[in-house]
Amino acid sequence: MPLYKAPVEEVMFILNDVLEIARYNNLPGFADATPDMLEAILTEGAKFAEEVVQPLNRAGDVEGCTRHEDGSVTTPDGFKAAYEQFRDAGWLGLSLPAEIGGQGLPNVLGLAFREFLESSNQAWSMYSGLTQGAVAAILVHGAPEQKKTYLPKMVSGEWSGTMNLTEPHCGTDLGQLKTRAVPQPDGSYKIIGTKIFISAGEHDLASNIIHLVLARIEGAPAGTKGISLFIVPKFMVAADGATGARNGVSCGSIEHKMGIHGNATCVMNYDGATGFLIGEANRGLNAMFVMMNEARLAVGLQGLAQSEVAYQNAAAYARERLQGRALTGAQNPSGPADPIIVHPDVRRTLLSIKAFNEAARTLALWAALQADIDARSSDAGTKQAADDNLGLITPVIKAMLTDCGFDNAVKAQQMFGGHGYIEEHGMSQFVRDARINMIYEGANGIQAMDLVGRKLGRDGGRAVMAYFAEIGGFIAANGDDAMAPFTAPLKSALDQLQQATMWFMQNAITKPDNAGAGATDYLHMFGLVSLGYMWARQVKAAQARIAAGAPDKARMAGKLVTARFFMERMLPETGLRLARITAGADTVMALPAEAF
Amino acid sequence: MPLYKAPVEEVMFILNDVLEIARYNNLPGFADATPDMLEAILTEGAKFAEEVVQPLNRAGDVEGCTRHEDGSVTTPDGFKAAYEQFRDAGWLGLSLPAEIGGQGLPNVLGLAFREFLESSNQAWSMYSGLTQGAVAAILVHGAPEQKKTYLPKMVSGEWSGTMNLTEPHCGTDLGQLKTRAVPQPDGSYKIIGTKIFISAGEHDLASNIIHLVLARIEGAPAGTKGISLFIVPKFMVAADGATGARNGVSCGSIEHKMGIHGNATCVMNYDGATGFLIGEANRGLNAMFVMMNEARLAVGLQGLAQSEVAYQNAAAYARERLQGRALTGAQNPSGPADPIIVHPDVRRTLLSIKAFNEAARTLALWAALQADIDARSSDAGTKQAADDNLGLITPVIKAMLTDCGFDNAVKAQQMFGGHGYIEEHGMSQFVRDARINMIYEGANGIQAMDLVGRKLGRDGGRAVMAYFAEIGGFIAANGDDAMAPFTAPLKSALDQLQQATMWFMQNAITKPDNAGAGATDYLHMFGLVSLGYMWARQVKAAQARIAAGAPDKARMAGKLVTARFFMERMLPETGLRLARITAGADTVMALPAEAF
Repeated sequence: MPLYKAPVEEVMFILNDVLEIARYNNLPGFADATPDMLEAILTEGAKFAEEVVQPLNRAGDVEGCTRHEDGSVTTPDGFKAAYEQFRDAGWLGLSLPAEIGGQGLPNVLGLAFREFLESSNQAWSMYSGLTQGAVAAILVHGAPEQKKTYLPKMVSGEWSGTMNLTEPHCGTDLGQLKTRAVPQPDGSYKIIGTKIFISAGEHDLASNIIHLVLARIEGAPAGTKGISLFIVPKFMVAADGATGARNGVSCGSIEHKMGIHGNATCVMNYDGATGFLIGEANRGLNAMFVMMNEARLAVGLQGLAQSEVAYQNAAAYARERLQGRALTGAQNPSGPADPIIVHPDVRRTLLSIKAFNEAARTLALWAALQADIDARSSDAGTKQAADDNLGLITPVIKAMLTDCGFDNAVKAQQMFGGHGYIEEHGMSQFVRDARINMIYEGANGIQAMDLVGRKLGRDGGRAVMAYFAEIGGFIAANGDDAMAPFTAPLKSALDQLQQATMWFMQNAITKPDNAGAGATDYLHMFGLVSLGYMWARQVKAAQARIAAGAPDKARMAGKLVTARFFMERMLPETGLRLARITAGADTVMALPAEAF
Repeated sequence: MPLYKAPVEEVMFILNDVLEIARYNNLPGFADATPDMLEAILTEGAKFAEEVVQPLNRAGDVEGCTRHEDGSVTTPDGFKAAYEQFRDAGWLGLSLPAEIGGQGLPNVLGLAFREFLESSNQAWSMYSGLTQGAVAAILVHGAPEQKKTYLPKMVSGEWSGTMNLTEPHCGTDLGQLKTRAVPQPDGSYKIIGTKIFISAGEHDLASNIIHLVLARIEGAPAGTKGISLFIVPKFMVAADGATGARNGVSCGSIEHKMGIHGNATCVMNYDGATGFLIGEANRGLNAMFVMMNEARLAVGLQGLAQSEVAYQNAAAYARERLQGRALTGAQNPSGPADPIIVHPDVRRTLLSIKAFNEAARTLALWAALQADIDARSSDAGTKQAADDNLGLITPVIKAMLTDCGFDNAVKAQQMFGGHGYIEEHGMSQFVRDARINMIYEGANGIQAMDLVGRKLGRDGGRAVMAYFAEIGGFIAANGDDAMAPFTAPLKSALDQLQQATMWFMQNAITKPDNAGAGATDYLHMFGLVSLGYMWARQVKAAQARIAAGAPDKARMAGKLVTARFFMERMLPETGLRLARITAGADTVMALPAEAF
């Protein structure tokens, strides 16, 4: 049976010592988030994730979801009971605004807790995760009465939400979508079409499901400028909030997938379902992007979460599995063999995952803090800087954390040898579940193009220049003997990233294929530098705790070792990425399509 | 439905133009292997793989194997009929010696054909692949009457073979194995114990199964020096070759695995089964290594094979899937969108797989040719040089081709977006099947230690020095303008590989953890240089064909582009690997086990 222990201490270190969230207690909701309060909530959240959600993970994978003849879908045994506990405890609204029924606590706390859920059981956690995304879109773009009608029951978890974008012939390229919206005399629309790959499209956890659906109003322009967003409830909702008749939307089938078996991935048929326009007509993509950006951060977190739980199991196995002897002589002479954690190649593998996880968590929480500042600060400049940071780092977090999260799950599985390939140990599930994160909410190649083609040049490069200046400033301020072993390699990597950025400016504006051919390498390079920066900040905080005689000295000393590993063995990958980027597009574009 | 077309033209180019196998027609069996004969056999083999074996792949994954209450195992529908065709056509003995019923053709031809089978259906192909390994062990270590009793029916495919090494508490560390062999008055042994993860341990394809089993004769020394190898037939075999009573070996259960569902992975119970010692007592590991080395090359080939079939499907999808527009303007203006192969990031991904596949195939066939020379040459020096090459390259092929083969299957799956995650397109199966190759026949970390700890230093480094000299000689002889763009980067990479080798000599002999901490990076570096060498040789052959006005000019021009891609974007990874190796073991070994 796989194990999981939520990294509460790690999160507390990041929030208090690295991000120093006490500095933000002028923001609404932050004053309540004292260290004691944070610890109490995280400890309670950890308990729920470990004891209620995680034990359902493996059984949920085996059982999967079942669609019945009437189109209803049953989730795996135990999912509903766990969801009811989650709902009743009010976890869904933890970081949502008080005016719609949430607790108004910082988003950074909500994201930290969500990592615990996703590590415990990604398939289960997606049901509520999608609701949070739908809430965000209605909150930003919904009319006041729409907010009043839908949000309170979504925030409480009584109802759930979905996002309906993909159609059989279009995923990335939403301009091709065909689902139609026919205006009705009462101001509503009839929605007609088929959506595929709809996560949590139908299930038995919530009493109603609020679908957000992209469709084209009859007569709207072709392409992306004729797409609108609609609210389509599974059950119609009366003005007083009471649910009424079944709407004309149903689950036509569920997919057989590589993983996340416990989450129903549905084909949704809209047979003249009643829908309500949300936001402006033909501006649906804008409204959907609110949801997507929130979801992309959450997916990046899922990548980290699978990496974390896979790592914990691999580390535990490496401490227990007796096989062979250390190269330097027996370490467990009274036993039949040494635990495999004595072997350098096993440690190297584990450290490469650990060094990723601890920096990726810091980066994800840093991004969540930017979202908090963006949403809650009253200072326009501060807000804009945070928004710039968030826009820049969102595709990096989505793609890099899921690419590496998957690779790390594979590495962790490898530690088990043949036992990792057998389903009963659960390592295969981590790999299979982690695989979807690289694909959904915009495949990772799309994220790379979002970063390079959209985010870098926006506002004359304001965001990226500020970000590089922030990292450069940290390096300049921390060149002392204790910090130089960490900031010197970070400086080299940052220099290379700046070279790559400059290369795009000089070579990709006139020849955009040069941007496309280097985009994925650039995104990973950007991620490596960002993780390196997060490591340098962790080191500084760890050194301060050690100097102050904090009781967790051993753990802090471990931080320094892990940071050194990152600097020695992982960060130098920026050089390889730079070489690939500057190779340009000529070779990549040279072959005719039929030569592939 | 996934597609597959066996790369017959590629193989012909490699055999005739790159490896120039006509130069070896003094070796037994090679004179028969004229270009026409090779093409005829490969074309026939391709047809069998594409039309008979491949169509069973996806259904076999869905159905899996079934163990019945009596311990018998049924393979998926159609497997038996396809196996009977394979058997009746004599494919199994293609490269096996004529004196045991084979056709005596070169091993390099047999391996080329086997790639087609493995791409078509790895689970199905393993049944006969394991038989080939068992034949090799009996051929080398069996007594004359054992060869006579078992080999003809194994070579014909009437009987199949297995290898039984792993036990619940030991895989890599065979010194811990507990299965006992109790000597009997008639010279046979009673075998008692449990083996796990036995591929093809029980099935319905063959009328008898010849298990090769590692066990400890009562009273034998502890550890690896007390292990012997036994033949344990499922049905006893009389002197005249007739099968008799059921032996005391049975399948206790079959595993639920991530992939290769069509191959029965069995727990085998030996309840006093009759076994016959093969080779010398207590020297069983030596005998088993004959089988393992053969199997390791075959597993490397499986890595390539999954990469190839996944690539073919991804390339076809990329040519067909219409999504978005080229960065440089519409390429398919009359359609709703351009095929995704116009996007640089898609091409980059496909080229990285293609550039691997074509070089990995050349390397695998080069290795198979070394095996031919080793087995068939009458010149002691030539034989030894080939044996040195084979010993050196076997762990590299096993580990690098399976690591990259898996990564490539994942990349190919990514090209499909959400459709790649759905089982019906078959991309998930390629990933799940490819995953086992990194694990079985010695997990890839073990291969790295075999290379660094055993193969590098053997005979004073004779093998590695000769290999580097061969590559260095090729570079020196090919520095002209046409070849320099390929040999110059190869020289840089070879220099780095030699630096890494030197670093181990200076730093790992006194401190073996330095070898362990760098072993995996070294193996990949070695593989990169080897693939680079194979690319340079392909380029030379392609340039010669172009100069000679050969009709496949477009394909040869494609070779030059693909080689350039490898040199620009893949080979530079050697620099990163070198940096990691020379970082040494200090950081890797610094943390106490409980800090992981």
